[in-house]
Amino acid sequence: MKDIIVFSGSAHEPFAEQVCQHLGVRLSPVNISRFSNDCLQAQLLTNVRQRDVYIVQPLVPPTQDHLMELLLMVQAARGASADQITAVIPHYSYARSDKKDASRISVGGRLVADMLSTAGVDRVLTMQLHAPQVQSFFSVPVDQLTAMGVLARYFQEHCENSVVVSPDFGNAKSASTFARLLGVPVAAGSKRRLGDNRVVIDTIVGDVVGKHCIVMDDEIATGGSILELVRKLKDQGAVDASVTCTHGLFAGNALEKLSGEKFITEIVSTDTVPEPAEHWPELHVLSVAPLFAEAIDRIHNGKSVSKMFEGIDPVYAPPKGQEGLF
Amino acid sequence: MKDIIVFSGSAHEPFAEQVCQHLGVRLSPVNISRFSNDCLQAQLLTNVRQRDVYIVQPLVPPTQDHLMELLLMVQAARGASADQITAVIPHYSYARSDKKDASRISVGGRLVADMLSTAGVDRVLTMQLHAPQVQSFFSVPVDQLTAMGVLARYFQEHCENSVVVSPDFGNAKSASTFARLLGVPVAAGSKRRLGDNRVVIDTIVGDVVGKHCIVMDDEIATGGSILELVRKLKDQGAVDASVTCTHGLFAGNALEKLSGEKFITEIVSTDTVPEPAEHWPELHVLSVAPLFAEAIDRIHNGKSVSKMFEGIDPVYAPPKGQEGLF
Amino acid sequence: MKDIIVFSGSAHEPFAEQVCQHLGVRLSPVNISRFSNDCLQAQLLTNVRQRDVYIVQPLVPPTQDHLMELLLMVQAARGASADQITAVIPHYSYARSDKKDASRISVGGRLVADMLSTAGVDRVLTMQLHAPQVQSFFSVPVDQLTAMGVLARYFQEHCENSVVVSPDFGNAKSASTFARLLGVPVAAGSKRRLGDNRVVIDTIVGDVVGKHCIVMDDEIATGGSILELVRKLKDQGAVDASVTCTHGLFAGNALEKLSGEKFITEIVSTDTVPEPAEHWPELHVLSVAPLFAEAIDRIHNGKSVSKMFEGIDPVYAPPKGQEGLF
Amino acid sequence: MKDIIVFSGSAHEPFAEQVCQHLGVRLSPVNISRFSNDCLQAQLLTNVRQRDVYIVQPLVPPTQDHLMELLLMVQAARGASADQITAVIPHYSYARSDKKDASRISVGGRLVADMLSTAGVDRVLTMQLHAPQVQSFFSVPVDQLTAMGVLARYFQEHCENSVVVSPDFGNAKSASTFARLLGVPVAAGSKRRLGDNRVVIDTIVGDVVGKHCIVMDDEIATGGSILELVRKLKDQGAVDASVTCTHGLFAGNALEKLSGEKFITEIVSTDTVPEPAEHWPELHVLSVAPLFAEAIDRIHNGKSVSKMFEGIDPVYAPPKGQEGLF
Amino acid sequence: MKDIIVFSGSAHEPFAEQVCQHLGVRLSPVNISRFSNDCLQAQLLTNVRQRDVYIVQPLVPPTQDHLMELLLMVQAARGASADQITAVIPHYSYARSDKKDASRISVGGRLVADMLSTAGVDRVLTMQLHAPQVQSFFSVPVDQLTAMGVLARYFQEHCENSVVVSPDFGNAKSASTFARLLGVPVAAGSKRRLGDNRVVIDTIVGDVVGKHCIVMDDEIATGGSILELVRKLKDQGAVDASVTCTHGLFAGNALEKLSGEKFITEIVSTDTVPEPAEHWPELHVLSVAPLFAEAIDRIHNGKSVSKMFEGIDPVYAPPKGQEGLF
Amino acid sequence: MKDIIVFSGSAHEPFAEQVCQHLGVRLSPVNISRFSNDCLQAQLLTNVRQRDVYIVQPLVPPTQDHLMELLLMVQAARGASADQITAVIPHYSYARSDKKDASRISVGGRLVADMLSTAGVDRVLTMQLHAPQVQSFFSVPVDQLTAMGVLARYFQEHCENSVVVSPDFGNAKSASTFARLLGVPVAAGSKRRLGDNRVVIDTIVGDVVGKHCIVMDDEIATGGSILELVRKLKDQGAVDASVTCTHGLFAGNALEKLSGEKFITEIVSTDTVPEPAEHWPELHVLSVAPLFAEAIDRIHNGKSVSKMFEGIDPVYAPPKGQEGLF
Repeated sequence: MKDIIVFSGSAHEPFAEQVCQHLGVRLSPVNISRFSNDCLQAQLLTNVRQRDVYIVQPLVPPTQDHLMELLLMVQAARGASADQITAVIPHYSYARSDKKDASRISVGGRLVADMLSTAGVDRVLTMQLHAPQVQSFFSVPVDQLTAMGVLARYFQEHCENSVVVSPDFGNAKSASTFARLLGVPVAAGSKRRLGDNRVVIDTIVGDVVGKHCIVMDDEIATGGSILELVRKLKDQGAVDASVTCTHGLFAGNALEKLSGEKFITEIVSTDTVPEPAEHWPELHVLSVAPLFAEAIDRIHNGKSVSKMFEGIDPVYAPPKGQEGLF
Repeated sequence: MKDIIVFSGSAHEPFAEQVCQHLGVRLSPVNISRFSNDCLQAQLLTNVRQRDVYIVQPLVPPTQDHLMELLLMVQAARGASADQITAVIPHYSYARSDKKDASRISVGGRLVADMLSTAGVDRVLTMQLHAPQVQSFFSVPVDQLTAMGVLARYFQEHCENSVVVSPDFGNAKSASTFARLLGVPVAAGSKRRLGDNRVVIDTIVGDVVGKHCIVMDDEIATGGSILELVRKLKDQGAVDASVTCTHGLFAGNALEKLSGEKFITEIVSTDTVPEPAEHWPELHVLSVAPLFAEAIDRIHNGKSVSKMFEGIDPVYAPPKGQEGLF
Repeated sequence: MKDIIVFSGSAHEPFAEQVCQHLGVRLSPVNISRFSNDCLQAQLLTNVRQRDVYIVQPLVPPTQDHLMELLLMVQAARGASADQITAVIPHYSYARSDKKDASRISVGGRLVADMLSTAGVDRVLTMQLHAPQVQSFFSVPVDQLTAMGVLARYFQEHCENSVVVSPDFGNAKSASTFARLLGVPVAAGSKRRLGDNRVVIDTIVGDVVGKHCIVMDDEIATGGSILELVRKLKDQGAVDASVTCTHGLFAGNALEKLSGEKFITEIVSTDTVPEPAEHWPELHVLSVAPLFAEAIDRIHNGKSVSKMFEGIDPVYAPPKGQEGLF
Repeated sequence: MKDIIVFSGSAHEPFAEQVCQHLGVRLSPVNISRFSNDCLQAQLLTNVRQRDVYIVQPLVPPTQDHLMELLLMVQAARGASADQITAVIPHYSYARSDKKDASRISVGGRLVADMLSTAGVDRVLTMQLHAPQVQSFFSVPVDQLTAMGVLARYFQEHCENSVVVSPDFGNAKSASTFARLLGVPVAAGSKRRLGDNRVVIDTIVGDVVGKHCIVMDDEIATGGSILELVRKLKDQGAVDASVTCTHGLFAGNALEKLSGEKFITEIVSTDTVPEPAEHWPELHVLSVAPLFAEAIDRIHNGKSVSKMFEGIDPVYAPPKGQEGLF
Repeated sequence: MKDIIVFSGSAHEPFAEQVCQHLGVRLSPVNISRFSNDCLQAQLLTNVRQRDVYIVQPLVPPTQDHLMELLLMVQAARGASADQITAVIPHYSYARSDKKDASRISVGGRLVADMLSTAGVDRVLTMQLHAPQVQSFFSVPVDQLTAMGVLARYFQEHCENSVVVSPDFGNAKSASTFARLLGVPVAAGSKRRLGDNRVVIDTIVGDVVGKHCIVMDDEIATGGSILELVRKLKDQGAVDASVTCTHGLFAGNALEKLSGEKFITEIVSTDTVPEPAEHWPELHVLSVAPLFAEAIDRIHNGKSVSKMFEGIDPVYAPPKGQEGLF
Repeated sequence: MKDIIVFSGSAHEPFAEQVCQHLGVRLSPVNISRFSNDCLQAQLLTNVRQRDVYIVQPLVPPTQDHLMELLLMVQAARGASADQITAVIPHYSYARSDKKDASRISVGGRLVADMLSTAGVDRVLTMQLHAPQVQSFFSVPVDQLTAMGVLARYFQEHCENSVVVSPDFGNAKSASTFARLLGVPVAAGSKRRLGDNRVVIDTIVGDVVGKHCIVMDDEIATGGSILELVRKLKDQGAVDASVTCTHGLFAGNALEKLSGEKFITEIVSTDTVPEPAEHWPELHVLSVAPLFAEAIDRIHNGKSVSKMFEGIDPVYAPPKGQEGLF
């Protein structure tokens, strides 16, 4: 059986280290350097010939540098005769740019997918894409994981009298699945467009009176829309709120703003992106490294990845009624 | 200036004829034949060398035959040295299959996009894709049109005391834009999942009491979810409803069921797909052939297509504040 | 050693079942569904990750639906990280459209070959293509089998005083090989063109007087040209005729017409395509499923496929005089 | 209107010169050099930016050098920003290698087609491919011409009491068309295989007694099979024979052998390949340069090429009954 | 004639403005925005349909952001049906990474070339690549310009008693050409490797005693090797030095260091990259914008670009002795 | 573990035989034939299904024939379902054509690289490319070997009082590495351009007085520049010279000229290309077949190839300080 070789770019090395620990392999060293003219270069310091190579790099700020590092590492692995190259992108942030919602506009989600193919990627392993259609932007197989099970385990113990709240209806399906896992009801904010660019949350669909809200989104960057939702929930008679997401970027002073809002009792995120440098008592970061490690193990050994999500989310789980076959 | 050559497959020749009439060109003949073993063959009967070729074919039932006709015509045009080949697909029905919403499932929307490239298409001209992300499944430029202006002109004259209703929140953005065009409020059905497959409309967000509802969807096939929504609207105290959509397939006895519901006063669709053989007094089919003709003319002459939708839908319209440049 | 996984589309499941039986594996389930707008969708119900996948589907009527099923299953397998995907197409009927024999005409044999590559096929396993050049339309390796050995075994026991007759000279090389296997002479019909489209068999080259004829073709669809040949053979003094082919489609009332002709004593075909629903006593269908099973086993285990045809047809057999090397 | 630029490799410059003369353009100079290690290099000495470029090179011996020259000229033109590059290959000799007629064998006809695409060709203009399927080996449009009209004009004046004879049945369709043009009957040799490799002409189908034979083939290289046929025709009571072909390579001492056979009264070929250095009184070389010039002019001006063959060969001519459209 | 449309990314807008001024066209606006998660997006604010589009962006720091901007603008133009897209990259800094000079290392020069093709570029217009082989890393045509004529015009007036000095022998061919243009001799530094990474200039080949040196390099980033060379020239008895290069990046405190060296009398660069913010009296920046404007005009009008360098550098100039043909 | 299968084209079969001997495998037979029209054809006589295939063919004269043989063998292997195909090209002579050093000129080094990909190559194994950038012309992984260790072992025993001399500065880096291996100094010829095409060696940089020179180049074809250098060395007071290179083509009367020069005491080359037919006492050909055999073994078994060059050339060796990882 061929070895697993794992590399990490500079975006989130602690995460790669943890994945390796769960896999029981050593993180392989890579040398990323910068020419004096600001061009990047990557050299893999381990033999990858005929190996099954995994390169870990979430697309977090500085996003363009991290993307280029990833592409250069992939090219280096391809040129060094790696067998299969899997780009492990815990947060594929370019999924945000997923449609031509104005004329003559770029769609970064598709362009970056194509660039990864050009560099030589054979497969992508990622978590919770902004829109499910983005998976089909790729010409190579994409294994998409979900953090829902990890988040549900966290909330299961203290979710009485709770309601899961989605900030908008685009995310409502995930929120419903999450609510079902916790055995609580679901609600959602309904947005209204004011003029061309300003959007307000008009109303909350579903009953939140006297409840603890678990506000759930896929990515939190500035936290602006979460704050607006939270104010609306307060108005509607909710008691307080946990805020949770898969990709907790917390750009700028997002954590300051969220923590400053007394209505928010805790913020629960995962480690698909680096933790903030400063310590925030309200922030709980759950690790999805074990999930990525298990997925890599299953990919490497030809076992079903969907099997990992049985009983969690039917979209990710294997088809029903064929148990014996897996 | 190179000539425009327009061909039609067998899916919807009357539509192609109308487009040609608006363009002031003759529909060019094509000979589609079937081998005794059921394989299809296409022969273009007009010289297409260095011409700007448009092949009109919505993907309507029998969908696979119509798709194959389209692919064979494109291949024949490519082999006969056409300059630019535009597949004019008024209804790209495979957009329905737009994501891996279960493990190991096909995504026809992406596969068909790739097959069109393989056959030799240079551009796709279509209308109202099921999800906006599908546009980025294509590796060639896609010009997407909207019927919203045509539908709005129809309803403008009799929309007092009306409300636009979207059957779900996926379609709510279009519904909002439509409502704004008519100057009326918007509402939407909120779906809930019962067990694994059954979905019910739980509630209506927005006020419909005492109102005439304009129920709007992108495609109507069996009409099942429309009927369910309509019952809910009745319960909520709405007066009656117009039902409207871009792609009115009306599969099976859909029109019988919709017409049988007294609450529905009219059904308004467009001619992106063939009209039903039988006459239904409740059904009004508006023609979008002039829109397609204008788009072809603009593509051919290098004029902006987005310009056609100025003041109608900001997603389709050219960017603001740069008027002089177009 | 990686497992073999076999799927079947809906074109000819009994054949796939038989292949599996010979291989000693279970046919893996697949769920093919149809959207209400007539678009198809395929979901593989078995894990295929890193597996060697075989998808069985002859291109028989309704040909376009079966082709699309095949393409969607291939795409689903690719997206689910299958290792090698072999499209097993016992009858590749689109080989019929193998040349531009008129200006601006499609060549389906090439287009479908390209579409299979686009969907993600790694190899094609097929039998008896209409023209040998079609094999080179594919960009992926094609393993082509021949039913000649199976047919020869059937006729060997009762071929005294026989002559193998090819309906035309295009097929004459195969007929010669077949005759040599049986140890009997060969003859062929010589076609003449009347006007532009009508073709008549002008004469029979080779001696058929007082002989039992074994009329051999690659595919029989309507049976029209076979009937015309048979009449000519009668005129020329032949006694009677067996009719045999690899791909016995028998479209429309072909079997009725052939069986109604008293001169024809039997019709011998193979199971590359589904058997007719009705029972015809004159029809003998020989199974080539064991050949396909052996070929799959050899492909899977890296053994020579040509080796299967040693002593049968030099075109398919391995090169002479290198026995020790295989 | 963009200019036509014509280059010639070293295979057959006089032909390119003639084509240019008919087009009224000057042949553009190219510098083909050879490194001391035998590698070839091509430099175009005329500006080709945005031009419509035609590179004339039949694949005649030394075939590999001429092929490489062609590929390098195409690459140079592509790198120098030519608009459309047409490889004008009057004799595409690699069409001879058109199928896998033994296991693990190369198919040069497909490989060279792919290599031309790789180098950057947009279109191929050629004459009389060995098998019609070879046209579909190319991924770019191929315009195939026929010399049949030119040859027919030559024979029309002295073809009383003649019969057109094809050496085998593979070529019989062309022979029939030719016979119909001349208004004379057709005959064909019927080959038989002796042992594995030796082939003899067994019989002549069609009446040749007392007739002048016009023996017609696509390519004559060593002339061996022609000589064998001619002996058979003599045996069958034919009077004498003209031998004609499109591509008269006459390799080795072919002309000596053919001229030495008294039964052969003349040999008629075209200039798709260079004329033999020595003068042979029996050899008449007809020019197809005017046909190539007209085809280039039609390609350049977007006119139908098939139109050139109306009334000559229905396979090459435009579809019937649509006259007004061309 | 189609219009020229010029866009500029944010790397060097003043240069794009100047190019436009020389072309007599208006710089078209583009809207580059940044998502809150640091992903970039580009929207072209001018209609580009069927237009000849030029996108100006040197790859200067922050290099990765500028590269991504360029790729997104190209994708947006492709999706908006531009006709031909030329990436105008005055300084292609990734050419620095031009070979695998260590095992398992990336080659950014090739990767970025492939990525530009993936995004949809049809042609690249650039100046003075670090190594001439890099031009062939691209799969699309590359028009490479040289600043040598512009620099020579500057020095021509005051180059008595001068010698052109190349810092190493890799650049010596360019230096020789430059010296010949000025009519002065040439010299070069000879590097020696100390241990593995340290390189010193060992000696100066050519006579520099009592001379004014014109030190010439392609790119100056930190200026370190220039300073070392200058010290060596001082030791060897040279009088003083002008320092000149095409791409004057002057990273960090390069200008401070160079200006601080009294031996250096002036620094002459071009505007392929943005000028330093601070004013340096020793620095003279010559504009190559007129050259780029003329090249764009020639590309657009199908005129020879090499013609611009006749009499300047034979590598860039058109072939000799064919004057009448251009 | 899959078998290694080695084939040889007709360029240098003895080398392939030796490689096989070192690998302990039998050279597999191939049948290369020539059609009467000079087209080539290749048939592999061993089963290659799922095998790791190596095809040995240096690009030596007649270069075009040998290149075509290689391409056809690759295509045949691909079509016969080989697993991995490595083109073993000990001398990739087309690397000589590595840049556009004049306008509108071909770059054979890139074209041939692309053609190999088109034919179906997965990897290239070669030695000492003319320029290091050529490695990045390939889209597939290239393993480049160096003969430096083999040559150094030869000279180590008699290199007192020697100096390594590079004919020009392009090759100087290799010469330095070689000198360091031998523990002797290095010198280099400095070329000057006279007029446009004539180049003379102007001077020798480095001390050669009273020394034995080891003149080193990558390829010797006509030997012209070596002879000129040798004359200059004589002038400068050197004692005598060994001449050494990796690729000793010795075209025309090169060996006669070199042997005729008394100053040259020996000529040392390797067997990447066939030895001259005639015996020359001055010529010593060292075998690099063991290196190629070891590289093939390492490729096949997923071991590091760079490891072979540890302590020889840092460019080829693995990165420092990571020993434990390989």
